[in-house]
Amino acid sequence: MSSIYGKNLKISLFGQSHSPGIGVTVEGLPPGFAVDFEELNDFMSRRRPGGSPFATPRREADHPEFLSGLVGNVICGAPLTAVIRNTNTRSGDYEAFRDLPRPGHADFTAQLKFGGAQDTAGGGHFSGRLTAPLCLAGGIVKQVLRQKGIFVAAHIASVGEIEDDLWDPCREIERIENREFPVLNPAQGEKMQRLILDMREQGDSVGGTVECMISGVPGGVGDPIFDGIESRVAQIVFGIPAVKGLEFGSGFAGSRLRGSQNNDPYTVVDGNVRTETNRAGGILGGITTGMPVVFRAAFKPTPSIARPQKSVRLSVLREDILEIQGRHDPCVVVRAVPCVEAAAAIAIYDALLDVR
Amino acid sequence: MSSIYGKNLKISLFGQSHSPGIGVTVEGLPPGFAVDFEELNDFMSRRRPGGSPFATPRREADHPEFLSGLVGNVICGAPLTAVIRNTNTRSGDYEAFRDLPRPGHADFTAQLKFGGAQDTAGGGHFSGRLTAPLCLAGGIVKQVLRQKGIFVAAHIASVGEIEDDLWDPCREIERIENREFPVLNPAQGEKMQRLILDMREQGDSVGGTVECMISGVPGGVGDPIFDGIESRVAQIVFGIPAVKGLEFGSGFAGSRLRGSQNNDPYTVVDGNVRTETNRAGGILGGITTGMPVVFRAAFKPTPSIARPQKSVRLSVLREDILEIQGRHDPCVVVRAVPCVEAAAAIAIYDALLDVR
Amino acid sequence: MSSIYGKNLKISLFGQSHSPGIGVTVEGLPPGFAVDFEELNDFMSRRRPGGSPFATPRREADHPEFLSGLVGNVICGAPLTAVIRNTNTRSGDYEAFRDLPRPGHADFTAQLKFGGAQDTAGGGHFSGRLTAPLCLAGGIVKQVLRQKGIFVAAHIASVGEIEDDLWDPCREIERIENREFPVLNPAQGEKMQRLILDMREQGDSVGGTVECMISGVPGGVGDPIFDGIESRVAQIVFGIPAVKGLEFGSGFAGSRLRGSQNNDPYTVVDGNVRTETNRAGGILGGITTGMPVVFRAAFKPTPSIARPQKSVRLSVLREDILEIQGRHDPCVVVRAVPCVEAAAAIAIYDALLDVR
Amino acid sequence: MSSIYGKNLKISLFGQSHSPGIGVTVEGLPPGFAVDFEELNDFMSRRRPGGSPFATPRREADHPEFLSGLVGNVICGAPLTAVIRNTNTRSGDYEAFRDLPRPGHADFTAQLKFGGAQDTAGGGHFSGRLTAPLCLAGGIVKQVLRQKGIFVAAHIASVGEIEDDLWDPCREIERIENREFPVLNPAQGEKMQRLILDMREQGDSVGGTVECMISGVPGGVGDPIFDGIESRVAQIVFGIPAVKGLEFGSGFAGSRLRGSQNNDPYTVVDGNVRTETNRAGGILGGITTGMPVVFRAAFKPTPSIARPQKSVRLSVLREDILEIQGRHDPCVVVRAVPCVEAAAAIAIYDALLDVR
Repeated sequence: MSSIYGKNLKISLFGQSHSPGIGVTVEGLPPGFAVDFEELNDFMSRRRPGGSPFATPRREADHPEFLSGLVGNVICGAPLTAVIRNTNTRSGDYEAFRDLPRPGHADFTAQLKFGGAQDTAGGGHFSGRLTAPLCLAGGIVKQVLRQKGIFVAAHIASVGEIEDDLWDPCREIERIENREFPVLNPAQGEKMQRLILDMREQGDSVGGTVECMISGVPGGVGDPIFDGIESRVAQIVFGIPAVKGLEFGSGFAGSRLRGSQNNDPYTVVDGNVRTETNRAGGILGGITTGMPVVFRAAFKPTPSIARPQKSVRLSVLREDILEIQGRHDPCVVVRAVPCVEAAAAIAIYDALLDVR
Repeated sequence: MSSIYGKNLKISLFGQSHSPGIGVTVEGLPPGFAVDFEELNDFMSRRRPGGSPFATPRREADHPEFLSGLVGNVICGAPLTAVIRNTNTRSGDYEAFRDLPRPGHADFTAQLKFGGAQDTAGGGHFSGRLTAPLCLAGGIVKQVLRQKGIFVAAHIASVGEIEDDLWDPCREIERIENREFPVLNPAQGEKMQRLILDMREQGDSVGGTVECMISGVPGGVGDPIFDGIESRVAQIVFGIPAVKGLEFGSGFAGSRLRGSQNNDPYTVVDGNVRTETNRAGGILGGITTGMPVVFRAAFKPTPSIARPQKSVRLSVLREDILEIQGRHDPCVVVRAVPCVEAAAAIAIYDALLDVR
Repeated sequence: MSSIYGKNLKISLFGQSHSPGIGVTVEGLPPGFAVDFEELNDFMSRRRPGGSPFATPRREADHPEFLSGLVGNVICGAPLTAVIRNTNTRSGDYEAFRDLPRPGHADFTAQLKFGGAQDTAGGGHFSGRLTAPLCLAGGIVKQVLRQKGIFVAAHIASVGEIEDDLWDPCREIERIENREFPVLNPAQGEKMQRLILDMREQGDSVGGTVECMISGVPGGVGDPIFDGIESRVAQIVFGIPAVKGLEFGSGFAGSRLRGSQNNDPYTVVDGNVRTETNRAGGILGGITTGMPVVFRAAFKPTPSIARPQKSVRLSVLREDILEIQGRHDPCVVVRAVPCVEAAAAIAIYDALLDVR
Repeated sequence: MSSIYGKNLKISLFGQSHSPGIGVTVEGLPPGFAVDFEELNDFMSRRRPGGSPFATPRREADHPEFLSGLVGNVICGAPLTAVIRNTNTRSGDYEAFRDLPRPGHADFTAQLKFGGAQDTAGGGHFSGRLTAPLCLAGGIVKQVLRQKGIFVAAHIASVGEIEDDLWDPCREIERIENREFPVLNPAQGEKMQRLILDMREQGDSVGGTVECMISGVPGGVGDPIFDGIESRVAQIVFGIPAVKGLEFGSGFAGSRLRGSQNNDPYTVVDGNVRTETNRAGGILGGITTGMPVVFRAAFKPTPSIARPQKSVRLSVLREDILEIQGRHDPCVVVRAVPCVEAAAAIAIYDALLDVR
């Protein structure tokens, strides 16, 4: 099993939803880099639940304690480890799922894999809460990248069937980090919010997609075949709970096109080779072109819903009806936006460190 | 850089399109397993071009020579290395692309990465020809898996906007390996073939998608977070040239659904826990459920088209018109089907070897 | 950089000598295994300084807090992370070494590598204190191995020129874990202790060697070439600070012998194939023979000595005299014994998990 | 299992002693570097048997064929794969060892690991012949390093009890590559040669040690803990068949010294920080100091001897007497010298590529 990602920048996630703490160890950050803790906190608060009607009412303070890797706020070269304490947990909610697994969750597969030893409380190691240390690591990496002129941003591209505008993949990123509901088109954003509130009221949930753009990546980053940028980004993005699809550039839509429509013609802009369009999503042969890297990730609807569902009581191998209580996000994509940014930042920086 | 994949089953691809040979080293195959060479040849011939109007007229014999890893036809435990000689190459076709890169190809990004040292002939290391040794490795792994009751199959799911039927993700695989044009719905297959011939005549190309199913995988295979089945499959499938999208189970369509629609209810069939639907694509929390694993990969249209295209002459940084001669597939998905099967087999077997 | 070891059992060390905490993340422990905390504490106390005249007077409580990976005291399958708080630190002692590096320490090389950003306090990430979490991880693994009938033990083989007896490499391990001064021959042990006290009084230090035996390892564990048992053990044992040599079986002495003297004849004992001697140290071709695995590690004398030493003031590139104050072990091998056991246990268990 | 080494420079060895071919794939060589084939051949011929009374009379042409990775003689950035054909093999010699394993060889452990499927001919994958592709890879890397001012050289440090002089670890390497019998002290070399001839006549063999020096390595190369230079070098050097011991700098002898004797005082030479002695072997805290890196490897005596030896007939579990025919080196250290250089070069270059 592995909760470790990366070759040059290595991150190792640990923790269960209701264990004493969750956290991350990061190796490969640049010695001498000064972390801006306030900015990091702002970034992490974009993922933090509580206070918003679009997310679970469970409140998480998520203030990390840095155990190692820093002298003051400066990266010292030793592995950086940070811990976030788990508080405000209600483990009693979960023990029943060991025998009567929740559809769409990892309850049943964890039972198969760990033979009953798994920590069921709060979803254990499979909880979306593990994305907090992912954001912690990614938030620092984002700061490192920005110093190199590389910007990572994401927005909600769809909630259910309601779609946001897409970014022009040939232009610089529009900074939307400070928007409370991260969409490009506020009118569509309002519709999304209404749909999410509807879902909450109905005891249901809804899926969505997130679009991410990384601008400023120099050309020539990434490697052929299994270490191409697509492969590297995919390995980490599919590690975010609920991601079931991923496409780069024109992606699935591009598979319906002609070569004459999908190829990006080369041109010269300000003395640099650029492409007139960017259906490649900034990647050819696994290597960056110098155009923005663009991808979209598909999130399934939150499996935790308040409605009665068919499950199986494992101890007696008999069907039974499950009703989930508890606090759940009616739509994970809202909080997933910074997680996708974090994952993308980590993947790109790891690839950058392979450039010599 | 890395052309190596895997943790327990490791494959290492080598070769350029026009170098003396291409090949693969495979570590981790089970000692004592007898390889069926005839079956392997049949599998590899599904990928082989030549003879079909739907593929490049370049003929490749693709008869591998096994340098090591076998005693007779039996896996001996040492790394297995096989080489396929490159013959029938016309390197002269390609030298021009070093200065005037082909849109949609890796010519330009290889130049950025390797600074002019790259082998441009036939696309070098980026050539789709590297999928021949991938199929060689995957073809052996498929045989190993079948002995364990695990079957891997794929079909063309779409060419352009023409769609094949999809597999019922809850049922056993329909064996379609012997079909010349690998679709489930022959009528749709005929339309696809007409479209591909059209593209050939128009000097254009078209993309498509491939659906892959792996049945018989026991539950409990795969690992949390970054080594989930999605992450493992994604890393290798995005290593196949031209893949720009990947989705598991309900994938992107699932992101438009409600939780009450997308969750798979548990049920009991013949004393086994199963799901009534399989929108999860056989994977929850990165771990297999025991249902078939199902995914779809999106292939972009072949970038090599016979029409004039805009490019940039790099030595003088000036735009120029490029016209590509040569032999190219008007649609790569036909030959991509066994490549996807090979990649899936390798990923699943590698994950299986982590189960203890 | 990497503080990560292992393929199936992965350990990731973090922390600096004077950072808020040091610790370890361990992946791959067997779900359902119950950790005996009291026994773990006993094991870790063998490494702990304080209270003994043979070690540094710095006292470390070294009580780990388990943040994740357990439900109660049972391994749940998620990564196990434990933290040991750093208390009783006196950072002021160390700042001077940034400009005037201590001979034999990593002060100068850390400066070269991290460009001044390194944490100098207490030796930072290079401190022997990092062996506390190594022992924590290894202590748990030792418990896991013992349940499989595999025992790991080590003793001081020499201090300076005073030598302990060596183990008969063909017999079961004599359990010496409870001895305060871990030697086989108490008379030699007393001489060693006198030498160490002498060194302390003289403000000097002395090196030594540790012999380790792992009995009960089944034959057939380990892999050819770069993943042989020697390579696996070497990578982790050379990660223990101050180790500068390592030999398996007859080792350097064996290089002076004839083949007819060094080969181990096969014989049959109780229906099992054994060797009459064990000059191979239980390993042939990188793979275990079923005989005990035996190796010896050489530790250099503690570089921290109280005598004036020649160094260079880096800021002005001029030679200067350095006098070290502080609390140091006059001989690290006493406390290194459990560290070697921990490292050996981790390497062997990781290799065992590759056996299918 | 793994025959793969390295993180940035990856080498993957394949082949059995009597399979159609043996070879190596190398990833991470610098694109644009021109390989000097003549020099490479000279380097490989230092390892080649035949023609010398000190080595096996088996002749190996060892002319590699380069399948990929080059355009002409220039590294193109794709993985470089080279194959050496196995000719002049006499497999009949070896089949008997499957049931009656040779003491000191991997026959028995391979049987345990591969369950009888292993290739026994010529020692299969465990054969010293696999060091030919290791030298091929290392010979290229040595050329790359030399262009950076880094020199790797080794000499026989002892054969049996006869010792060569050792290098002054503070001085530049004396180039001895062209000596037929690679020692520093020719008089001692003559004694060694007489001893080896004696061993041949007596049907016996003898072990020895090799000393290796790498000069010109800049300070700051290597990483803390498990990726220190010692750990990196150890993993690959213990992968050379017959290596059973390894020590850096003062090594085992240093373990008998005082700190005041073993510490290397800093000094300034020509404006650079140097150490007056080099008992650290150029490495502190796993990181290079800028002084030459020095280590010694211990080789056991060749296990193949012409005398009757006790073994066990595995099929009937009964002791029996084995007499080995065939062609064997009475002392492997002569031919091991370039193998050690190759391994050292690969380890150092891989570590260098981690410096950013």
